[in-house]
Amino acid sequence: MHLADTWHQFHTQAITNKLPLFTHHNRLFDILYAQQFDQSTLSQLFTIADRIRAIAKTERGMRYLKELLNDKRAMLFFVQPSTRTFMSFLNACHILGIQTSEIRDASTSSEIKGESPEDSIRTFSSYVDLIITRHHDEGFAEKAAWVLNVQGKRKVPVINGGSGKDQHPTQALLDMYTINRAFKDHGAFSGKTYAMIGDLKRGRTVRSLTQLLALYKDVSFRFISPKEYTIGQDIQQFLNDRKIPFTLTDSLEKGIKGADAIYATRLQDEYDVNNESKHTDFSSFHLTEKHLPLLKEHCIIMHPFPRRNEISIEIDKDPRALYWKQARNGMWIRAALILYLFGREDRIALYT
Amino acid sequence: MHLADTWHQFHTQAITNKLPLFTHHNRLFDILYAQQFDQSTLSQLFTIADRIRAIAKTERGMRYLKELLNDKRAMLFFVQPSTRTFMSFLNACHILGIQTSEIRDASTSSEIKGESPEDSIRTFSSYVDLIITRHHDEGFAEKAAWVLNVQGKRKVPVINGGSGKDQHPTQALLDMYTINRAFKDHGAFSGKTYAMIGDLKRGRTVRSLTQLLALYKDVSFRFISPKEYTIGQDIQQFLNDRKIPFTLTDSLEKGIKGADAIYATRLQDEYDVNNESKHTDFSSFHLTEKHLPLLKEHCIIMHPFPRRNEISIEIDKDPRALYWKQARNGMWIRAALILYLFGREDRIALYT
Amino acid sequence: MHLADTWHQFHTQAITNKLPLFTHHNRLFDILYAQQFDQSTLSQLFTIADRIRAIAKTERGMRYLKELLNDKRAMLFFVQPSTRTFMSFLNACHILGIQTSEIRDASTSSEIKGESPEDSIRTFSSYVDLIITRHHDEGFAEKAAWVLNVQGKRKVPVINGGSGKDQHPTQALLDMYTINRAFKDHGAFSGKTYAMIGDLKRGRTVRSLTQLLALYKDVSFRFISPKEYTIGQDIQQFLNDRKIPFTLTDSLEKGIKGADAIYATRLQDEYDVNNESKHTDFSSFHLTEKHLPLLKEHCIIMHPFPRRNEISIEIDKDPRALYWKQARNGMWIRAALILYLFGREDRIALYT
Repeated sequence: MHLADTWHQFHTQAITNKLPLFTHHNRLFDILYAQQFDQSTLSQLFTIADRIRAIAKTERGMRYLKELLNDKRAMLFFVQPSTRTFMSFLNACHILGIQTSEIRDASTSSEIKGESPEDSIRTFSSYVDLIITRHHDEGFAEKAAWVLNVQGKRKVPVINGGSGKDQHPTQALLDMYTINRAFKDHGAFSGKTYAMIGDLKRGRTVRSLTQLLALYKDVSFRFISPKEYTIGQDIQQFLNDRKIPFTLTDSLEKGIKGADAIYATRLQDEYDVNNESKHTDFSSFHLTEKHLPLLKEHCIIMHPFPRRNEISIEIDKDPRALYWKQARNGMWIRAALILYLFGREDRIALYT
Repeated sequence: MHLADTWHQFHTQAITNKLPLFTHHNRLFDILYAQQFDQSTLSQLFTIADRIRAIAKTERGMRYLKELLNDKRAMLFFVQPSTRTFMSFLNACHILGIQTSEIRDASTSSEIKGESPEDSIRTFSSYVDLIITRHHDEGFAEKAAWVLNVQGKRKVPVINGGSGKDQHPTQALLDMYTINRAFKDHGAFSGKTYAMIGDLKRGRTVRSLTQLLALYKDVSFRFISPKEYTIGQDIQQFLNDRKIPFTLTDSLEKGIKGADAIYATRLQDEYDVNNESKHTDFSSFHLTEKHLPLLKEHCIIMHPFPRRNEISIEIDKDPRALYWKQARNGMWIRAALILYLFGREDRIALYT
Repeated sequence: MHLADTWHQFHTQAITNKLPLFTHHNRLFDILYAQQFDQSTLSQLFTIADRIRAIAKTERGMRYLKELLNDKRAMLFFVQPSTRTFMSFLNACHILGIQTSEIRDASTSSEIKGESPEDSIRTFSSYVDLIITRHHDEGFAEKAAWVLNVQGKRKVPVINGGSGKDQHPTQALLDMYTINRAFKDHGAFSGKTYAMIGDLKRGRTVRSLTQLLALYKDVSFRFISPKEYTIGQDIQQFLNDRKIPFTLTDSLEKGIKGADAIYATRLQDEYDVNNESKHTDFSSFHLTEKHLPLLKEHCIIMHPFPRRNEISIEIDKDPRALYWKQARNGMWIRAALILYLFGREDRIALYT
């Protein structure tokens, strides 16, 4: 089909070539890749999120926030299973007064009558002011944004809530926001050592997070994983090109000692082809109470969740464990992003 | 069962006999059949819809609309798969500030505990002020409205969002609204030739639309389909009774040449009993770029969607292609209908 | 696992020992068991519900109610099929302006990635101000409330909308509210004879309702059921301990004659192990028109719904049939409960 071919041509280009289509009037319009965020945009979004959470502390503030976008409607097209990201986005919308509609099961959709995804997306754009999507197909969100930018008359922004295993930009955003808050009084991102643990080969969060952290000065990385699940060559090349120091190790103890931040992730066995994960013993990559004495006093511990056994629940009570705050941060930074996309972030400065 | 029998007796009557039950104080109360709309009501609804869309153009206007029915709650009981109609109704409600609840999967409902549909509907009516329903059973919406009118103490209007293959009155309404807008400066509905294409035997949209267009002066029709999928004898009789000219043809070229409006529809193969659709070649009924030179300058092209190949995507860019506007029109006219059902249409006149 | 063990230890204690954890500052915080309601709390909730329904009668009143909690967000985690309870809670939230999010299908949830229910609940609590849950697992709601009280930093109340076959406290609450309204001018709960019909062995509603009615003076009970489905020994002991008279009978006629209230329930055959319900003839326990002459003039007839044949539909028109009002009462009393949980019940006194 002509249309798919054309998107396909677009899709296979380098991200830097694609960015202009998703930027309108020098502002991000569609949010598709973690690479869209630069230092300046990140800093702006963190400020908006901090302001929103401060305003949200009172009843009067919550009512003020709810007026900000209560003339808008969003659609969550989430046909890949997700609770966390779905709930986080939905409540981010609700905080700002946006009314939401959901399609969560493609079998209740007109897709079963043979409609093309392009037609579905254009139809959805008729009804709402924002589309947030999570899809099992790699590149689906990009395709949706491409369709609306190239063919649609009604411009409606698209936010990628996860497309296959390639991109999940708002996860990277909430991770960055959490680190930013934790290190605010300790020099922010710069000069820190980040220890990433788990299935680094297949997990998208560590890849995106590493690329964003690399924007800052004097960072270094430790990638802790079984040898067969180490971080991709492309990310290693990316760091080498920028002369950013990193080490690869399969010793959890060595990797976490002296690190400023620990980011644990789960085994991505949904991408197994032949149950290959079963042949590797991951238990030595699980953070437990016995590791706590190895950690620096201000080291932070993060996890994108859901977790299985990567971090033992005894650690939950340690003040360095930030993963519960991290979940809630996701809601605040998504609210900030949405407010920014509608260009109304200046209104929160008016609140007194 | 006594109750079902009684509804069954009601159901098998002619529609004209049934209308009084669904009309309260000389206004439509339940929306069940396309035949409920007369010229005067159509004209009134079009005016409301035009006004709503004009007000919706500004932030202040959107906020005004959201106050109109924000004391009301609606339920969408959509157990037949649908994305388009569902999203359209849901957002129509949201535009007016109505809060919505959804049942989209009968398996999560109390039906599995053996409850009768009558009891379910009466229960739903306890919680909300409006029920919008789409159901695989022919006559389900009528049954729901009958139950609430005859047995219920709490009168709650019912809108039929599609019941089996019999009725889908708001689809006809949005089609009429789209034609009305397109022909506003060209004499409105009267004096036009309408070309209907596709599986006219089994599609409900063309049947309903034809009946509504027949309300206007000097219209004529061309029904373009494979011989075995031509429009039903009942519609032909209906037109003959009113001395409205029409032709039947299996030549797409002949049918569209000189027409004022083209309405293409898809093959309704979900009603196949033995995959009989596969024996017919529909490709000669697909509108493509090569047909564009045959069309009049102001001819409009419509499609109720979802589409497969009935209209090639190259045509999307032609200014005569109205099917994307048609989708959005569905939301506006449904908002107008809902505002009318609650008797608050006069409030939009107050907005300045 | 350590955590589950600990909850398990908690769970197996007597309810009276558990109540303090779910009471904050001398007010109910989490709603988990019917036994949490005493006379004073019931009376308070009935007053709030009466006030809400009175205010809701006008458009202005509805708008006032919608402002009461429109700074709050609730989540409905309903993974056990339910329409009635779900719709009732959802609309109770909407009446008060609470924004809602739903998880209705565990297969769309992160549970499939192997997360523990404890982690899911803590995550949900990050996003909302209230969790309402219905779950097939006995004790699930209690576990959720336990997790948030013991481990969570963010205190979010949990309402049990039904957990397995053990507890469904808001059903008991709405039943009590319905009786209270019916008997307001006839001496309220005290001095009445309550006839309970059906599968009393396995139904949770009659058990909870009996325990709450036993709080009042001079009540007596008749338990009408096939011998093999009579009310549990524990409830009989409970009544004997309080010297509350009751009879057991398998004669519907005897049981309902002279009763002040009749509460019919359906066969709970979803708890059958070997289709054992099929061996019992329940038809002689079905209330039909021929029984109406046996009833007292002010006798009320209730049913928690869904119904099959326990009450014939001819009875629906009898003014003593309260089951339709009962359904709507569920919405009002749940709204009252939610307003109470947020400590804003005093605001409805301000409305004039």
